[in-house]
Amino acid sequence: MANFELTKEFLDEIIEAIDQQNREKIIDEIVNLYPADIATILYELDGPQAHYIFQFLDTEKGADVLSSIDSDDRKRFIKEQFDVEEIAKYVNLFDSDDAVDLLNEQPIEIRERVIAILEDREHARFILDLLHYPEDVAGGLMQKELVKVYEDQTVSECVEQIRDQAETVDKVFAVYVVDKDNKLKGIVALKEIVLARKNTKIENVVQEDIVYVETTLPGEEVAEVMQRYDLEAVPVVNTTGRLLGRITIDDVVDFITDRAEEDFQAITGITGEAEEDDSVWMLAKSRLPWLVVGVIGSLLAATVIKGFEGQLARVTALAMFIPIMGSTGGNVGIQTSSLIVQSLAERTALAIGLGERLMKIAKVALVNGLVIGMLAGGYVFLTGDSQLFWVVCLALLSVVFLASFMGTITPLLLDKFGINPAVASGPFITTANDLVGIGTYFLIANWLL
Amino acid sequence: MANFELTKEFLDEIIEAIDQQNREKIIDEIVNLYPADIATILYELDGPQAHYIFQFLDTEKGADVLSSIDSDDRKRFIKEQFDVEEIAKYVNLFDSDDAVDLLNEQPIEIRERVIAILEDREHARFILDLLHYPEDVAGGLMQKELVKVYEDQTVSECVEQIRDQAETVDKVFAVYVVDKDNKLKGIVALKEIVLARKNTKIENVVQEDIVYVETTLPGEEVAEVMQRYDLEAVPVVNTTGRLLGRITIDDVVDFITDRAEEDFQAITGITGEAEEDDSVWMLAKSRLPWLVVGVIGSLLAATVIKGFEGQLARVTALAMFIPIMGSTGGNVGIQTSSLIVQSLAERTALAIGLGERLMKIAKVALVNGLVIGMLAGGYVFLTGDSQLFWVVCLALLSVVFLASFMGTITPLLLDKFGINPAVASGPFITTANDLVGIGTYFLIANWLL
Repeated sequence: MANFELTKEFLDEIIEAIDQQNREKIIDEIVNLYPADIATILYELDGPQAHYIFQFLDTEKGADVLSSIDSDDRKRFIKEQFDVEEIAKYVNLFDSDDAVDLLNEQPIEIRERVIAILEDREHARFILDLLHYPEDVAGGLMQKELVKVYEDQTVSECVEQIRDQAETVDKVFAVYVVDKDNKLKGIVALKEIVLARKNTKIENVVQEDIVYVETTLPGEEVAEVMQRYDLEAVPVVNTTGRLLGRITIDDVVDFITDRAEEDFQAITGITGEAEEDDSVWMLAKSRLPWLVVGVIGSLLAATVIKGFEGQLARVTALAMFIPIMGSTGGNVGIQTSSLIVQSLAERTALAIGLGERLMKIAKVALVNGLVIGMLAGGYVFLTGDSQLFWVVCLALLSVVFLASFMGTITPLLLDKFGINPAVASGPFITTANDLVGIGTYFLIANWLL
Repeated sequence: MANFELTKEFLDEIIEAIDQQNREKIIDEIVNLYPADIATILYELDGPQAHYIFQFLDTEKGADVLSSIDSDDRKRFIKEQFDVEEIAKYVNLFDSDDAVDLLNEQPIEIRERVIAILEDREHARFILDLLHYPEDVAGGLMQKELVKVYEDQTVSECVEQIRDQAETVDKVFAVYVVDKDNKLKGIVALKEIVLARKNTKIENVVQEDIVYVETTLPGEEVAEVMQRYDLEAVPVVNTTGRLLGRITIDDVVDFITDRAEEDFQAITGITGEAEEDDSVWMLAKSRLPWLVVGVIGSLLAATVIKGFEGQLARVTALAMFIPIMGSTGGNVGIQTSSLIVQSLAERTALAIGLGERLMKIAKVALVNGLVIGMLAGGYVFLTGDSQLFWVVCLALLSVVFLASFMGTITPLLLDKFGINPAVASGPFITTANDLVGIGTYFLIANWLL
């Protein structure tokens, strides 16, 4: 099977089968699909239809499907369709990290009742451990399920460990070697276990120089570490070096794509989790906040222009260059800030001091300002409003400088206050720079004309 | 070892050691680092210094370091410092996909000479096979190294296969089961191999219902498939179902982050691979193309405004609302286009027809246009230029509609012509919409005043 594709025809068939309570058809068509594909179908059904499908899935498949559904949709779905016993039945079979994600979507009361009736009590304890961690640090991304062995055990004891835990630990890439205090000593890759003789001691095959992360490491840095060292899983330890869990690459991939999507939305001025297939009202609502910010910024610009109405009445040609001041300010601001945002994201780069950074930015601004100023100056010269030549050139050069500095400072400040600096590449910086650009222009006009 | 961090002090020490040809110090400090960390150090050295380090690494570590360096830097570094024999020595130990990446960076002549003298002739054949594929499809992402077995073999024969190939196949997640024609029949997870009895036949443990991809599948869809089904590796087959290679998750993670970075740069109007620590000239050059586009757009807007100079002379207050027309057009255009870009990226969504899509966009535009129009209308009303009330309201509503439609059509058209539609979320759409917004405004003013 490659790539499942959900066609309109197939979906219509499924809905018809549900309406007619056609059990055989549903079992034939759905039960053998991959969980992620069943989830795709559920997105297109209403709550009761989606819930109806679940009765035909065995509990394990049902749990896999439920763990593949997007957070927001799952929250609504579970709230409308599932009682506490049913939630617990499925959560009992989740990996601990996925269980925590699902429970964090629920009201505290539901969360506590589900944990209280979980059949697997070790699992319940794992979940309680994980609930303490913020979502976006290593502790919040890790799962408790892993295979661990002691240094003085043999390979064949290790295989027995894997066998015992085969049901709860879905993916085994390596076994983790710990001492009596549960301190992480190293790992043995599964390949080594396959190739080693049965009575080999673990201490003879353990790889001791390994990469691990601490529970408090931010998710971005976990992603960076796993990508840097090409890891499928990374062990998570506390500050004393005790092994607490592991993070698998699939969760990190999800984390990376979620972050990229968030950045994309921040840059383009869409708030919340808007998707093209949301309702008209949802779509409008996700856009309005930034549009309104833009409108307010522009009305401030209008007020600035009003203040120079006398100038404008004398030299109407001044109006011609209002757009170039706004757009140049906006474009330069976005370009500068986005490079800063990128370098904030890639924290491995050698830190350069603020002074050095500003100096360099000033040089780049000089080059760009001169090129832009010459282009616009040429236009002014050719179209004959020659009294504006120096006003336009000087204003553009100033705007490029100001926008470069604002584009540098804004994301650094946002980052300092814990706000996603990517918003500084979006409507916010454009609006601010529009305003600064137009203000600068009229001040210079006022001075020179 | 967690997270290596390169400090200025450490770097200075290394550079001093190189200058003094202090072998012991370099061996002590560098040789035991992870390849990715050594690569980080090399970025900060000049060519001869970096090359000097290589003589202290054994060939395998040298190959790992070389395969971790970014494409552009590696291209320059190899060109300046390595002869063909030295390239071949390292490429001989690369995974085939990495070898192809490195060779694709070289001039054809160098590429052919390296392949001709590769010691491992099977490896050379692998590389020649892979050189045919475009970089951004499954065939271009796959590596030839994998472990395969036949259905009628036993688990212990399979373990021998793994042992034989342990040197060339770095990461084994599963073994691939093929028939006599090399057609892919299924996989056996490494965990199953560990747990199975030695004389079990492979056909009794093979998992037949598996996910695979064809060589021509675009990289984005490979990433989507691996993420959807939580895979660490996916087998690649040709159209007749023959097994050709596999793609591992680390390459897909790199692919995803590269794409996210490209999109980010496209949106924010930076061309090429600019990084904040590039030279002033590189930085200026990467920004100028879009700045110039913005300037040209704004000068066209200036020409439009010039055409309405008579109007402006009569009603100077018209100039006040030039910024709001431009910025609203730009913001709405970016928001609309970025949702389209997102839905193009997530190709799993049920396709909705263009008509339906436009209808919905029109409704969203109506809601947003009314809110923005009312805000700006209120401002006009309060500041007393009441003759402009209808001009501003009507122009804003029209601008929101026009920008929404352009924001929808532009990325769809770009995608059709094979251009990254993310550029439509950047300066291009802002500039176009600035111009359209201002033109619409003056036409309506001309009509109503």
